[in-house]
Amino acid sequence: MFQTYDPVSDRSYASQHLPLLRAVLKRERLDGLLVPHDDEYLNEYLPACAERLMWVSGFSGSAGAAIILNDRAIIFTDGRYTLQVKEQVDENLFEFVDITDTPPNIWLAENGVTGSRIGYDPMLHSPAGLANLETASDQAGFVLTPVSPNPIDLAWENQPAAPVTPIVPHEDEFAGKSSKEKRTDIAEILKNKGADATVLTAPHSLAWLFNIRGKDVHATPLPLGRAILYDDSTAALFVHSDKITNELKEHLTKEISVHPEEEVGEALKELGENALTVLIDPALSPVWFFDQLQNAGADILRGNDPCSLPRAMKNRAEIEGACRAHVRDGVAVSHFLHWVATDGQSGNVTEIDAAQKLEGFRSRSNLLNDISFDSISAAGSNGAHCHYRVTTETNKTLERGTLYLIDSGGQYPDGTTDITRTMAIGEPTDEMRRCYTLVLKGHISLATAKFPRGTSGHQLDAFARRPLWEAGLDYDHGTGHGVGSYLSVHEGPQNISKKLISQPLEPGMICSNEPGYYKAGEFGIRIENLVVVREPEPVPGGEREMLSFETITMAPLERHLIDASLLTAEEVKWVNDYHAEVYEKLSGDIDDYAADWLRDATSPL
Amino acid sequence: MFQTYDPVSDRSYASQHLPLLRAVLKRERLDGLLVPHDDEYLNEYLPACAERLMWVSGFSGSAGAAIILNDRAIIFTDGRYTLQVKEQVDENLFEFVDITDTPPNIWLAENGVTGSRIGYDPMLHSPAGLANLETASDQAGFVLTPVSPNPIDLAWENQPAAPVTPIVPHEDEFAGKSSKEKRTDIAEILKNKGADATVLTAPHSLAWLFNIRGKDVHATPLPLGRAILYDDSTAALFVHSDKITNELKEHLTKEISVHPEEEVGEALKELGENALTVLIDPALSPVWFFDQLQNAGADILRGNDPCSLPRAMKNRAEIEGACRAHVRDGVAVSHFLHWVATDGQSGNVTEIDAAQKLEGFRSRSNLLNDISFDSISAAGSNGAHCHYRVTTETNKTLERGTLYLIDSGGQYPDGTTDITRTMAIGEPTDEMRRCYTLVLKGHISLATAKFPRGTSGHQLDAFARRPLWEAGLDYDHGTGHGVGSYLSVHEGPQNISKKLISQPLEPGMICSNEPGYYKAGEFGIRIENLVVVREPEPVPGGEREMLSFETITMAPLERHLIDASLLTAEEVKWVNDYHAEVYEKLSGDIDDYAADWLRDATSPL
Repeated sequence: MFQTYDPVSDRSYASQHLPLLRAVLKRERLDGLLVPHDDEYLNEYLPACAERLMWVSGFSGSAGAAIILNDRAIIFTDGRYTLQVKEQVDENLFEFVDITDTPPNIWLAENGVTGSRIGYDPMLHSPAGLANLETASDQAGFVLTPVSPNPIDLAWENQPAAPVTPIVPHEDEFAGKSSKEKRTDIAEILKNKGADATVLTAPHSLAWLFNIRGKDVHATPLPLGRAILYDDSTAALFVHSDKITNELKEHLTKEISVHPEEEVGEALKELGENALTVLIDPALSPVWFFDQLQNAGADILRGNDPCSLPRAMKNRAEIEGACRAHVRDGVAVSHFLHWVATDGQSGNVTEIDAAQKLEGFRSRSNLLNDISFDSISAAGSNGAHCHYRVTTETNKTLERGTLYLIDSGGQYPDGTTDITRTMAIGEPTDEMRRCYTLVLKGHISLATAKFPRGTSGHQLDAFARRPLWEAGLDYDHGTGHGVGSYLSVHEGPQNISKKLISQPLEPGMICSNEPGYYKAGEFGIRIENLVVVREPEPVPGGEREMLSFETITMAPLERHLIDASLLTAEEVKWVNDYHAEVYEKLSGDIDDYAADWLRDATSPL
Repeated sequence: MFQTYDPVSDRSYASQHLPLLRAVLKRERLDGLLVPHDDEYLNEYLPACAERLMWVSGFSGSAGAAIILNDRAIIFTDGRYTLQVKEQVDENLFEFVDITDTPPNIWLAENGVTGSRIGYDPMLHSPAGLANLETASDQAGFVLTPVSPNPIDLAWENQPAAPVTPIVPHEDEFAGKSSKEKRTDIAEILKNKGADATVLTAPHSLAWLFNIRGKDVHATPLPLGRAILYDDSTAALFVHSDKITNELKEHLTKEISVHPEEEVGEALKELGENALTVLIDPALSPVWFFDQLQNAGADILRGNDPCSLPRAMKNRAEIEGACRAHVRDGVAVSHFLHWVATDGQSGNVTEIDAAQKLEGFRSRSNLLNDISFDSISAAGSNGAHCHYRVTTETNKTLERGTLYLIDSGGQYPDGTTDITRTMAIGEPTDEMRRCYTLVLKGHISLATAKFPRGTSGHQLDAFARRPLWEAGLDYDHGTGHGVGSYLSVHEGPQNISKKLISQPLEPGMICSNEPGYYKAGEFGIRIENLVVVREPEPVPGGEREMLSFETITMAPLERHLIDASLLTAEEVKWVNDYHAEVYEKLSGDIDDYAADWLRDATSPL
């Protein structure tokens, strides 16, 4: 089993660990320390050794920060984690601050003490983040002090070691393009920008550029490391030497030299000494890299990681792989949904039972390399927490008269999946059916959108929300995120949300389409399919080519929650067409015992 | 008559004026000059003395730029003006460049000659614009040289004088708030930002803050001038002394000192000498102001003009005034539409006849102080140019079997109007009806939108485009712009368009709702009403308050162009409800001869 259900942290962490950290700060003559959630790779999933925020506070959420002073400690979290932070963090030791209202830099501008020395680890902050802190330091007069090694690493007894897992090739058959081709393309981009080289600090860029995958973190096949790509398409890869097998050496060819990760500093120095122009992404790269380059005399060109956009625009092999993975995943999910519709109705099944059952169905394909994130398996009122993670302490039973929401995904060699289904346990109320149908209307509206080149997800997001807005409802998360190709389940640069991200949706991008509705204390609803942006196509009788989405997630929607009287004829047709496609693609692989159920579940409304 | 129909420029301008300008450049030892469209107020409507781009090139569009070198001249315009620039500018003397693909800074980066001296007038560029030019200068090695006076002003024989029209009070009854109250509010904003004063360089900010209006430019009641507001709510106004009457002096009170406009430089110097922190808007203010402040030692705080947002969020008196103005304007427009539906069908009526007729109907109220922009009166294929301006040279007849589009507005003391109607002349084709109905569907979709606080127009724009996108069509202009209160017909900071403008729509903002469709060489369609953003309201059965739009433009839509079979029941109801409201509000003021027509034109579909 990939997912574990034990609580990952403990409310006693703060009382255990704050004194240890404060002793180190005193020794280092620091009056305080900034503790971001981010690790050295500014990455979403952290290896255990980088869970510094959790170690010091007990908070295990996926975003947040802390400021540890001699006599105060403050933890900053967003609206998603308002409840969780209070459960996990000792309120006698930490003050709670909303990070949206008052981020750490603003808090420091208002509360920073003149002359005090506040430490930060230059490996854990991007230049943009640091610039905000420097403004605060100017305003409040405290002294922002780079510290290395990180004082938490000095204070942390039995800190786990950094992960060292073997790196494996990602076959060209799945990647659709060889590393050589990709490096040649990116080298061309470098030349056009007048850059001699680019420093890649994001592990998913390494994974994509060199067609490699690793197992250094949970749920995403990332090889942690760094790389430099030169404008002649040769490269240097910096990873722990134990990660390199002979098979991998052959795969990398002589054009990619391999070095221990700690030698990257030396390599940056060389770039500077040769007075090269170096492209580096100020949003994705730690400020440490900028400092090293600048001190060495390199000409720094700030710009987007040149791998980001090509990675997001999947090629034909990647799209075909994704479709195969989604059929395979859909078979597993359908077996699971059948189980929820039968055994799951008994009132004796828990959230953990259900999540394990689903992982079991996924594993049967023998192609599941990992789950793509910890399943959100949420019964009844737990579903109203849109980022709920089930543990043995919160584990609820699927009770009749409630809704059950499960958001989950798999990592297959040919693609990454991410799907949410909401099921009725027993007889749903009219309100549940109405709300589910409103969410479905938004989902269909986005799924059927046509739009011209240049349109961003920010412009389309309201399509998915409109039916809810008309009813005075909304949801406090994005409608869609990018999804990688056997890579990160959350991938940029595109986004479909209220957040102002201007990246246009381009052909080949894979995004989620996941509107929801959450009634606090009662239930949660989310309907999530992945879609691929199609090439622009002429519209009969029209003048301009339009892009559109192809839905690739294949699993039945919950017909018991659909109030067809609230749907237009076109919406009913969309559901029926979708279900017909689901049946056609899955029925050949579904076990006999579930075949009738699948036919019924996908029959016309 | 406020509108004139003579061609405003001449194709011979370039051959007449380029040699004069080049002689001055030679004398000043300049190798070239940047000629933006903007004037000293970075304003949309220019006084005749500031039409420098037109003087040197012949191009009369509302946006563009030129670079004049010794041996080359380049004119930059956007897609709206591709045809017009070729008609107005001598292609033997000017090269044409698309400003979207290659703005002047990029052109100079690629074509600038090392060591050459390129002049710019620091009064005609914002710091943001100049920064782009400085980057180009770094790349190409030319020397960017501030020049004052502007070489065009030296070369221009018989350049008109700057306008000097009396400034009049804008009554509190219409403004809804006294200048004292406004100044107190803005002074509070200054204090909160830590600013001692703000320099206001945009005339519409002066108009709003001091409750004054002028007649210095066409179509917008602007008093050209500058002002400084201090954090104690006193102010200094810099305008030509002939603009000041005794009545105005009394209106301004002793709290607003009045000075000749040319003394503003001295006042900036004083701000610096007193080491004050000065808020100034880098998007709205010429770089000259930044230079003066900086040289004098002021602490410059860059930020939005503090008047922009309060001006955009109309108060109750302004909204009530706008509604009154729109009923008055709707009566005039309805008389005009009746005329188009009768006399206008004869085949003997021209675009100029029609525009004059409409201005005549508007003038009958005796409250029309100006038109709010030159009417776009466009018959047949002229309608396909979305920014068409009719002249005696282009004047077309309204022929049967074509469409007639008129976009127009009035300046009344209680409000500014802006309305577009498209009418069938003779029997429309099925295609015209289909396209009109698609545009109408988009218009209704935006008009009926509900949305939560924080939503920007950028997020709603696609509602208006979706019916067209589904048909493979689109339009190349924004869906909605802000509209002033007896002030600019194009007003920021809000916008409903593809342009990434993040300003949320706030209660009281007035915007246009004007989707369109343009079939090149055949016809143009646009349906424009103004809407006011309502206060957020609870939705029955919902959880969150939602904002919405109230349509305030009152005039019949063209029922002969509506194909009701393409409308949903809700859309038909919207049209019928809108028409019922139009009839109710206008029928009491409509002349007898048009009363039956109005009843028919607004009867249910």
